[in-house]
Parts: sequence; C-alpha cells; structure tokens
Amino acid sequence: MNTSDDSGRNIARLLITSPDRPGLVAAVSQFIFSHGANITQLDQHSTDPEGGKFFMRLEFQTPHLDLGREALMAAFDQVVAKPFEMQWSIQYARPAKRLAIMVSRHEHCLMELLWRWSRGELPCEAAMVVSNHPDLKEAVERFGVPFHYIPVPPRDPEAKRKAEEQALELIRGKADAVVLARYMQILSPEFIAGTGVPIINIHHSFLPAFIGADPYRQAFQRGVKLIGATAHYVTAELDAGPIISQDVAHVSHRHGVEDLKDLGRDLERQVLARAVRAHLEDRIIVDGNKTVVF
Amino acid sequence: MNTSDDSGRNIARLLITSPDRPGLVAAVSQFIFSHGANITQLDQHSTDPEGGKFFMRLEFQTPHLDLGREALMAAFDQVVAKPFEMQWSIQYARPAKRLAIMVSRHEHCLMELLWRWSRGELPCEAAMVVSNHPDLKEAVERFGVPFHYIPVPPRDPEAKRKAEEQALELIRGKADAVVLARYMQILSPEFIAGTGVPIINIHHSFLPAFIGADPYRQAFQRGVKLIGATAHYVTAELDAGPIISQDVAHVSHRHGVEDLKDLGRDLERQVLARAVRAHLEDRIIVDGNKTVVF
Amino acid sequence: MNTSDDSGRNIARLLITSPDRPGLVAAVSQFIFSHGANITQLDQHSTDPEGGKFFMRLEFQTPHLDLGREALMAAFDQVVAKPFEMQWSIQYARPAKRLAIMVSRHEHCLMELLWRWSRGELPCEAAMVVSNHPDLKEAVERFGVPFHYIPVPPRDPEAKRKAEEQALELIRGKADAVVLARYMQILSPEFIAGTGVPIINIHHSFLPAFIGADPYRQAFQRGVKLIGATAHYVTAELDAGPIISQDVAHVSHRHGVEDLKDLGRDLERQVLARAVRAHLEDRIIVDGNKTVVF
Amino acid sequence: MNTSDDSGRNIARLLITSPDRPGLVAAVSQFIFSHGANITQLDQHSTDPEGGKFFMRLEFQTPHLDLGREALMAAFDQVVAKPFEMQWSIQYARPAKRLAIMVSRHEHCLMELLWRWSRGELPCEAAMVVSNHPDLKEAVERFGVPFHYIPVPPRDPEAKRKAEEQALELIRGKADAVVLARYMQILSPEFIAGTGVPIINIHHSFLPAFIGADPYRQAFQRGVKLIGATAHYVTAELDAGPIISQDVAHVSHRHGVEDLKDLGRDLERQVLARAVRAHLEDRIIVDGNKTVVF
Repeated sequence: MNTSDDSGRNIARLLITSPDRPGLVAAVSQFIFSHGANITQLDQHSTDPEGGKFFMRLEFQTPHLDLGREALMAAFDQVVAKPFEMQWSIQYARPAKRLAIMVSRHEHCLMELLWRWSRGELPCEAAMVVSNHPDLKEAVERFGVPFHYIPVPPRDPEAKRKAEEQALELIRGKADAVVLARYMQILSPEFIAGTGVPIINIHHSFLPAFIGADPYRQAFQRGVKLIGATAHYVTAELDAGPIISQDVAHVSHRHGVEDLKDLGRDLERQVLARAVRAHLEDRIIVDGNKTVVF
Repeated sequence: MNTSDDSGRNIARLLITSPDRPGLVAAVSQFIFSHGANITQLDQHSTDPEGGKFFMRLEFQTPHLDLGREALMAAFDQVVAKPFEMQWSIQYARPAKRLAIMVSRHEHCLMELLWRWSRGELPCEAAMVVSNHPDLKEAVERFGVPFHYIPVPPRDPEAKRKAEEQALELIRGKADAVVLARYMQILSPEFIAGTGVPIINIHHSFLPAFIGADPYRQAFQRGVKLIGATAHYVTAELDAGPIISQDVAHVSHRHGVEDLKDLGRDLERQVLARAVRAHLEDRIIVDGNKTVVF
Repeated sequence: MNTSDDSGRNIARLLITSPDRPGLVAAVSQFIFSHGANITQLDQHSTDPEGGKFFMRLEFQTPHLDLGREALMAAFDQVVAKPFEMQWSIQYARPAKRLAIMVSRHEHCLMELLWRWSRGELPCEAAMVVSNHPDLKEAVERFGVPFHYIPVPPRDPEAKRKAEEQALELIRGKADAVVLARYMQILSPEFIAGTGVPIINIHHSFLPAFIGADPYRQAFQRGVKLIGATAHYVTAELDAGPIISQDVAHVSHRHGVEDLKDLGRDLERQVLARAVRAHLEDRIIVDGNKTVVF
Repeated sequence: MNTSDDSGRNIARLLITSPDRPGLVAAVSQFIFSHGANITQLDQHSTDPEGGKFFMRLEFQTPHLDLGREALMAAFDQVVAKPFEMQWSIQYARPAKRLAIMVSRHEHCLMELLWRWSRGELPCEAAMVVSNHPDLKEAVERFGVPFHYIPVPPRDPEAKRKAEEQALELIRGKADAVVLARYMQILSPEFIAGTGVPIINIHHSFLPAFIGADPYRQAFQRGVKLIGATAHYVTAELDAGPIISQDVAHVSHRHGVEDLKDLGRDLERQVLARAVRAHLEDRIIVDGNKTVVF
C-alpha cells in the first residue's frame, strides 16, 4: 500500500465509473496489458451486476507503455470507454499533486499534515498554507512551506468576499486540491466553485449528527457516549458533501466539553490525514453524494 | 465486576445525586461503615467541585448491617441525605428486578437477552415477553418465559390504544423495567408514563443521527463510513431520551442496505445487552437528558 | 456482500495463487467473460509486481456459461492456469458446504453459529455436532441438527485414539469443513490429517500471545489491557496455524479472570462467526502459514 | 479530567495500596475532609472485599488545608496509614514532574510528546532529550528543550557503559521520570536502577506477543490480523514490566512490513502519549508486575 516512495515515478491510476455490463473487467485489463503496462492493484465494485453501477480503480506501472500519455488516453477512450459508456480519468503519481491547506487558529490538523508530508507519508507538494490568522506563520515556514495571511473581518460581507478573492488568486491554477484543516470560515459557493479543484474538510463530529457550529458542545449536551470526526468533500451545502472517512472514540460522563475537544483533536488528525492520503493516492471515486474509497 | 452470581444475595447499592459540597464522601462512607456494611465499590463524579453536581454509586455488603432496610433508609435520610440535599435511592440486588421485554419480529436482540439471562449474565427475572406478532412464541417459551401476543392493527388508533392498555395490564406492578428489543411500534406518552418503570430502547443508529424510521436506509443514503446502535431510556420525545450506551462498526461502499442491517444486528445485540446489564446492576444515574454510567 | 440468499444458486468462485506476471488479470477475466460468465466480484493482491506472489478471487455468475463444470475446469487449466503456473480451484456456492462442529461444554460459540445458520447468515448445511460431553444435546437438536456424543476419558491415550476414530468415522466424507467451537481436547495429527478437510479453531487469546491452556488466566496474570480472540486453521502444531480473523476488547484492573472470560465470550462468538462465514464464502486463500482474506 | 491547566497549582493526589478492610474509605475521606481539603476525584478498586488488596486514588484541592505538606503527611501516616497497614504517597501537581526523554532516530513518538507538551496537554516540564544520534537536535531545540547527544558505539560494551554513565549523570536528580520514546538500545540493570525514577517504554507490539527486536517483522511473518503497541514501565527483564496502556489496529494481507510500521507509528504515538499523561497525573499504581490505572 505504500506508494509514497520513489517508485511513485512510474505509477498511474485509472478510475472508472460506468453502467455494469459483462466484459468490463476483461476489456479494461486486456487494454492495459496489451499496451505494455503491468497492473499492480485492481479494485472494483458493482452495486448490482444486473443494471447496477460499476466502479474500478486500477493501478499500473508505466515504464514499458508503448504509447505516450495523450495517445494512451485517446486509445482508451476509443477502444474501451466509449463502448462501455464510462466516465473515467487517468491520474499519474508524478508530478505530485499540489496541496493548498487553509487553517484558522487550531493547529493540530495542519501540523499533522505537514509532519506526515515532511516524512514522506503524504505523496504531494505542500504548496501553500492560507490562514485568516497570522498565528501559525512561523510553525508553517519552519517546514519550508509558504504561509499567506488573509484576514477575514467579522460581520463584513464585502470584506469577506474580497478575502475569498485573494485566496482564490493564490490557489487557482496553483493547487490541485484544497484541504480545510479546521478553517473556521464558511466558504461561499463562488469560492468553492472558483477553485476548480476538490476541497476536503474535517468536521469535528460524526456527521450527519451535529452539523454546524460547536459540535463538541452539541455532543456534550446530547450526552452521547461516542464522539466522532468526519472528513468529506466540500459542496455548496454545509457539512453535507460526500463523506470520505469517519472515526469515533468512546467517552463518558467524566468528559466535559474541553475533554471532548482534547479527544476530538486526536480523531480529527487521524481521520483527516487518512482522507487526504486516500485522495492523493487516487483511491476515491465520488458517486453523487457518496464516495467509493478503494 | 461480576455481580450476577450468588453473592448478589447480600449486595445493595446506594445511588446519589446532589449539589457538590465538601465532606460528602466522608459523610456517606462514614455512615455506611458505622452501620456495619463493607463498601465493595465506590464511584463518584463531580461536574465541578465548586458549585457543581455530584454523583455517587456505592456498592456494599449487607450481612453485618445493624439496621433493617426501612430503618437504614430512615437513618440515612435523616443523618446524611437531608443535610446535603441529596436525591438518593438504595437498590437491593435481591429480589432480582423483573424484566418485561417487548419485541416485534426481529428476534436478534430478544434472543441475545434471553440467552445471556439463561446463562446468568443478566441478574434479573425474565418475567415476560410481549409482542405484536405471534412469530417468536415458541422460541421464547423454550426458555420457560411467558409470551403474550397482543396484535396492533395498523392505522387504527383506537385498536392501538386498546393494545397498549392490554400491555399495561400485564406489565404494571409485574415488571421493574421494560426493554424494547426492536419493538417496532411508537408507544404513546400514556403508555410510557403508565408503566411506572424505566423503559430501555435500542435504536439502530448512532443517535442523534438518523432519528425515526429505517435508519440503515438513511445511513446508506448518506454514505456514512460507520454505522451505530444506541441504547437509551425512553421519554415522550421519539429517540431523544438519555443515552446509556453506543457503539459503531466501520462500513464501506461495499455494504448495501442489507449488509448494514446484518452488521447492525451484531451491534444492537451487544449495545442493548450492555445497557440492560448496567441498568440491572444499578450503575446508571439519569441526570436530566443525560446519564452517568458507573 | 450478502451472498447467503437464493442467488447463491448461480454463483461460483475462482481462487488463484501464482507467481505475479504481466497479463494475469487480463487472461483470467478474458477467459471468464468469453465463456459467458458475468464477474460480480474481483479481488486481487500482489506481494510484489516484480517476482512476487499473486492472489486472486473472482466471483462470477454461472447461468449463461457455455460449458459444464468439468469442461470449464479443463479449459481453464489448459488455457490459463498452466501457462501462468497457477494453483487454483473453482468453488460452487451450491451445494452448500457441510459443516461439522465440535464442541465441549462452553456453548456460546456453538449457539452463535447455529443461530446465525438458522437465520441464513451462514451459507452452509449444519451437518452435525460432535461433543465429548452430552450437555448440549437438547440445545442442538432443537435446531434440527444431529448431535453425536463421543466421550473422551481423561488420561487414557488409547480411549482417546478410539474416540478420535469414531469422530473421523462420522466426519470423513460427510463434512466439507470442521469447526472447533471451543472443543477442549487437543486433536492428534492423525485426526487432523484424517478429516481431509479444513479445520477452523477459535483460540481465546490474541495469538501468538498466550498459546496453550487457560489463556484468560495467562492474560490476567500478565496484566494486559486488551484481551483477544483468534480464529485460525488447525495445523499439527498447537495454536500455530494460519490466522483468519482476530479481534480484541479493552480491559482494565477492574476485570478479574471471570470478567475476562465474560468479555472474551463475546469476542470469540464474533470472531469465529466472521471466520466461518469468510471460509464458507470462499474468501480465504491459505499461503504457507498465513492467509489472504478477500 | 483535564488537570493540565492552572488549577493544577492547588491539586494533590493520594495513592494507596493496602489490605482491604472495612472502614478504609471512611477513614481516608474523613481524614482529608477534616483537614480542610475538598475531594475532587476518588477512585478505588478492591480485588476482593474479603482478604483482597485495596487500591485508591484520591484527588483533592489544597488551598484550605490546615496543615503544611510535611505535617499533613505525618498526620496521615499516624492516623490512617499505620492502622490500616497502607503503602501510600501524596503527589503534588506542582512543581510539575521533570521529564527526560530518550530517543534514537525514529522521531514520531518524541515529536508527539513535545507537541502535546507545548500545547499544555502533558502537565510536566520537558527537562531534556537524550539521544544516541544527533539527527533530532534541531527539531528538539526548536521547542526550547535541551538536547544531549551521547553516542553509543555498537559492539563495544565498555563504551556503552560509559555512555550510560553520561546519561545517568544528566538524568539523576534532574528528572522525575524517563520516557523511552523509541530508544533502540537495551539499557543495563545498572542504568535502570541508577536513575532512581520510573522509566516508561513504548514497545511496538501487543505484548507479550513479539518480545524483542523487529516486532513488525515478527507480526508480518506470523500473519496476524491486528498489530499493537504497548507502553509499560521498564524493569530489568526485557519487555516484561508492568503494562500501562495498549492499543491495536486491524491489518490485512495487503499490509507489508513497511505498511505495518506506518500504521504502527500512529498507534505508538497515541499509546505512549496516553501512558505518559496517566503517569504525570498520578493515575497509576504499580502492583507487582501489573498496574492499576485510575
């Protein structure tokens, strides 16, 4: 499973969504093989072999390919994708995806990502950190990562709009994915659409429980015996996008709101890191409001 | 922790809720000791030592008590409870609590409870099973437990009211607790109040997510990566009573609705059995809409 | 994932172990497709694409196959298996595998299996229960399953040998798998080899910790903070066979040996049921002393 | 549970081990109350009320105590401890315990501890880091913590003895606890005894499975389905000291040795941090080769 090392150089992944039909696996694997690539991982899933939806992730090694990237894609489209009515993409492990991380004051998720990235666990380029507070500038620059401070004045929609524009300016075309690592501003639909890339958020509850603000307080007041964290893709509807990863920890009456936050931090770090890694390794296919994570 | 054996004969538990004040633990433990009882377990919890709420559970052995049950309670009330403004109760492990179990067609939770009861894991008397379907009669009677079939015709409020009255007739005064082991009828506030005893329900989701009908379908449609089960005390508001126990299992895109139900059954059995046992061992103090489970 | 229903009638699974080589997936999936079968699940694993070992499980539907069982196998052997030097087998979901369950006095694992079987969760025929104690006869026969009592006198090797022979007589040719559901006798290598079918055991610890007798006492004395259960295939070496499934539960100083046994029972039931189901669904490939569980 | 904040100033903990006898709880709580301290937490455990062992942890606030530290201890010894034959200690939350961390090249456990310490989650003074490699000097000094590089030449017992002496020189009298955060040298009994303070180690397996070197490789070769981490107090016998905390993660055939190490790192960080925090909050009573963790 470890694909963050040098061998990443020669790795590509094919992601497919299509109607399920006999012959799919044979057609795809035959195509890949016949062009000189060796399949190293293959995962597939069908919601129903009769008239269901079919998902596939295929990882292959590219050194002996008989076609260049463009030609391979054109051939695949012609020979396999069109006949089977596939939605598909080929992702190459190199160049590594460029990550923009947005954060407010809570540093735990950001630090976890930077720390894992610095030791090679996250196959990406940590392209920039954007924050509405200056607090974490030094901690970020220590990793050699550019830090951009873009303040967002409270209760000033026009200032907020301008701040989002500034952030868009930085991100657009310079990042392949955005991670909201406890960024405590609600982003406008314009910003979300404007980045043109997937945005991953960490929500500090077991969604769909405790949508919105201060979920640990909500959890405390409801008296739940488990708290959770959820990493999901961001859509225009708050906390309602496709879920990538979730986890929980047991709690009891002994845990006050602050204790829940303490415990929750550990969950958030792990769940977000897992989701970001799955995204970077092209393991996720979004299917409507759900995900297939291979 | 094993208190379901014969030694239960001589065990009592004192449950206390009170304002937190200096001297509480000393006063209670001194009282118990001075009357000849040996403390075998003591748990306490304070929400805040300054002006917070204090909870205590104290298990003690009764053979060398110098007072009878009535006299002990009167003395405790006078000497300790009144000065400290406590709400309190003393529960004796014998006679065992009488349990009435209500069930519809899904037998897994019921069977789990009966099986654990039959092997001595649940310190109670399995007093009766009440069902709106006749299907499980034979399986229940095999355990030597009376089975009562009370049909509830759909869409007939008057018939439903009568069915609830019949059930009340059976339960009132003959059960110390009611367990809804997948009883698929919504009970009226009149029934809930009418039993006069605590009612424990198993809800097949991680509450407060997926309140109401068909939670596994709701979970499937939301695309969650964990499914849960919640045991809680029943109040007049649907699925909103104090939570006793919760647990979850990881799921993925591979799990259809039926798979979620399969996995969910295992969670429900474990979570409900744990909650019922905690209740029978007098480990639970209800505090508003929350529980302290010692 | 639910394959225990009627659709089982038309399902077959192909299990493959071979040296990893380019073209494997294409060759297999092409073969299956070209003979009219629809692939419903495909899992594969390679220890290393360069010179590693390759494992594959492929589930397919048989109604439109153009060849009978014998002819299909002969063709596969000729066209695919031989060129790629595969070890392989095709397993048909029907007729269901016949299960022989051996048990001593602890009934929890046995009851769990019979209960799941009776509700269709374990796709098998519960062919017989063999026990060295008569205690569980009634409980087993209630499920309509034959119960055979074969006493094994202690400290009498000759009597034990004879008892094993009797058991072999019952099992050989009449069971496709044996499950040791807390059978507290050590089986001889002769018996193990003599059955001619896989034997699954549940060991009440997290192997390889606490091999041998009374693992809960061993765990208690070591002061571990987790207890475990392990389901594994039986080999001639005690508790050393390929592990199929494991799980653990958190414990603390509050748990005495009896409490560990209580908790452990729940683990054992779940872990054994999961392993038996994986075996029955042909999800397991044994690789030396390890398993691949798809 | 959060005791790492300023209120730590006024907190003391009383830890008791004694034969279980009637009147213990009353005597202790009465003593504490009568001297003006308010009990904020009380945990107790008895292995058996008849002739068993009794453990107690009592946290209390000191501002209104009528005696100084010395006088309080003398009085407690006289009035309570001697009559009940207790082993006991009083620990004050201030001054904070001084921690010496020893590490080799793997930085994940060290970084986790320093990061948590820097944000107030570990109530201690990070007094020093001692390493047999220079690699982590900069990362440690960035936290404002002194870093000492003491090389340990391989296969040179005399040089190793001298290195241990140097480390002892640094630690003795200047640390209240030592944490081995993946320190890859086996420490001599002389060093262990010489520090005069508790030493906590993180072992990268679920002890007692996989004692000794390269446990992830051992786990991989055995084909286990769970990997674990264990934090324990160090004794003269390798990996055999009292266990404080353990946890596990599920793995499968897909995980190679490197993947196990990846996953294991996350476990090690969490388990060690949890154990160190419990130690710093005086929650642990060592009982022979086991621990009571309140």
